Amino acid sequence: MFSPIKNTKVYEQVIAQIKDMIDKGILKKGDKLPSERNLVQQLMVSRASIREALRALEVIGLIECRQGEGNYIKTSFQDNLFEPLSIMFMLEGSDPEAIWELRKIMEVEAAGLASKRITCEQLSQLKEITEKFMNCGDENINAEIDKQFHYKISECSGNVLIFNILKTVSTLVDHFIVDARKLILAHKENKEILFNQHNEIYLSMEKHSSAGARKAMREHLDFANKYMKKEN
Amino acid sequence: MFSPIKNTKVYEQVIAQIKDMIDKGILKKGDKLPSERNLVQQLMVSRASIREALRALEVIGLIECRQGEGNYIKTSFQDNLFEPLSIMFMLEGSDPEAIWELRKIMEVEAAGLASKRITCEQLSQLKEITEKFMNCGDENINAEIDKQFHYKISECSGNVLIFNILKTVSTLVDHFIVDARKLILAHKENKEILFNQHNEIYLSMEKHSSAGARKAMREHLDFANKYMKKEN
Repeated sequence: MFSPIKNTKVYEQVIAQIKDMIDKGILKKGDKLPSERNLVQQLMVSRASIREALRALEVIGLIECRQGEGNYIKTSFQDNLFEPLSIMFMLEGSDPEAIWELRKIMEVEAAGLASKRITCEQLSQLKEITEKFMNCGDENINAEIDKQFHYKISECSGNVLIFNILKTVSTLVDHFIVDARKLILAHKENKEILFNQHNEIYLSMEKHSSAGARKAMREHLDFANKYMKKEN
Repeated sequence: MFSPIKNTKVYEQVIAQIKDMIDKGILKKGDKLPSERNLVQQLMVSRASIREALRALEVIGLIECRQGEGNYIKTSFQDNLFEPLSIMFMLEGSDPEAIWELRKIMEVEAAGLASKRITCEQLSQLKEITEKFMNCGDENINAEIDKQFHYKISECSGNVLIFNILKTVSTLVDHFIVDARKLILAHKENKEILFNQHNEIYLSMEKHSSAGARKAMREHLDFANKYMKKEN
């Protein structure tokens, strides 16, 4: 199954071999990896190197180590996968403008895709979220609903990459723009404006209008961004 | 600087603390991490745990271990960063459509931004790349020029996040669509079409026309995508 390893950066080669077996379809989602001892024998490297490689794969979110059971290829990867991306964003991200620009591009297009791909079930979920907006007086809950709304739209884009990147980007935007809604809602008249903007996005989903969805999302984000700039 | 660690999954917490210091701006690109021994003392965990955490960060592409010098936060992260992403795609049975969709969105918008932000120097570099297209008979070199062209455009977007994501997405597209150009150029008349499309993109940069750049890039990518589908 595996073949012995020769070179210097041992753990890298352990990973390369595991990756290769995934590429060839020998290892699949949910599969159990050979035991550490087994890997030591097959690859002829130290147990420490095997462990380093396995830990790295665990950090990446590719495998999970179940206590007493062994190591398994995960069946779902979204959670940890974009961890490295978010760290990079932190290191590169002295520039909130760049993050906001990326978010806008991705979210406007996600809305466009979602309008075409949204299912009946998703549409009624989105309707429910939208209706909660006006009916709730608690701003903390409203802020949460706001997040859910945007999260749902990117999910409905049907593109798992776009969904994951937007998720990461949103986390970062939240990081820079703490309580964005509070800044906007310092002006009372904005509550209705915000509701109308979200409702407009929802209605374009109902009509499956890609152009409408992109326009409504762009207007909403431009509005929010303008406010944040003004207040900061 | 660091604080002692209590819980079970020790290496995860080592990573979390390093991440936190990056988040707070205490650790920056190119910075040297404390020595392994130092980390052992500060975090009060075993050397093995420290090493596991460092290896994982190395695999992610966040730090590099320089022989005899110590561990440094990298200054450029593109190379390894999307390693986990490419592995995920292998496991997910890989949906090239999703990757292509993401690439198209990002690259069309990158072209739009580039048209507004491109400097005189970048413009003349892009002109040089564009002119090489028609004058070169060697397809291997042309394929390389093609890559350079797209790379330059995303660089000129002036958004380092967009640039990095596009670079890694392109790598993924290359992985699935081997020798895309060869497929297109199996039809002789396409050589001129490809040149004209790239030239059109270049000209829109010269005019600093955002709408023109986005349109030209979209047409180019749609053309390429259609061909690949037809041939596969």
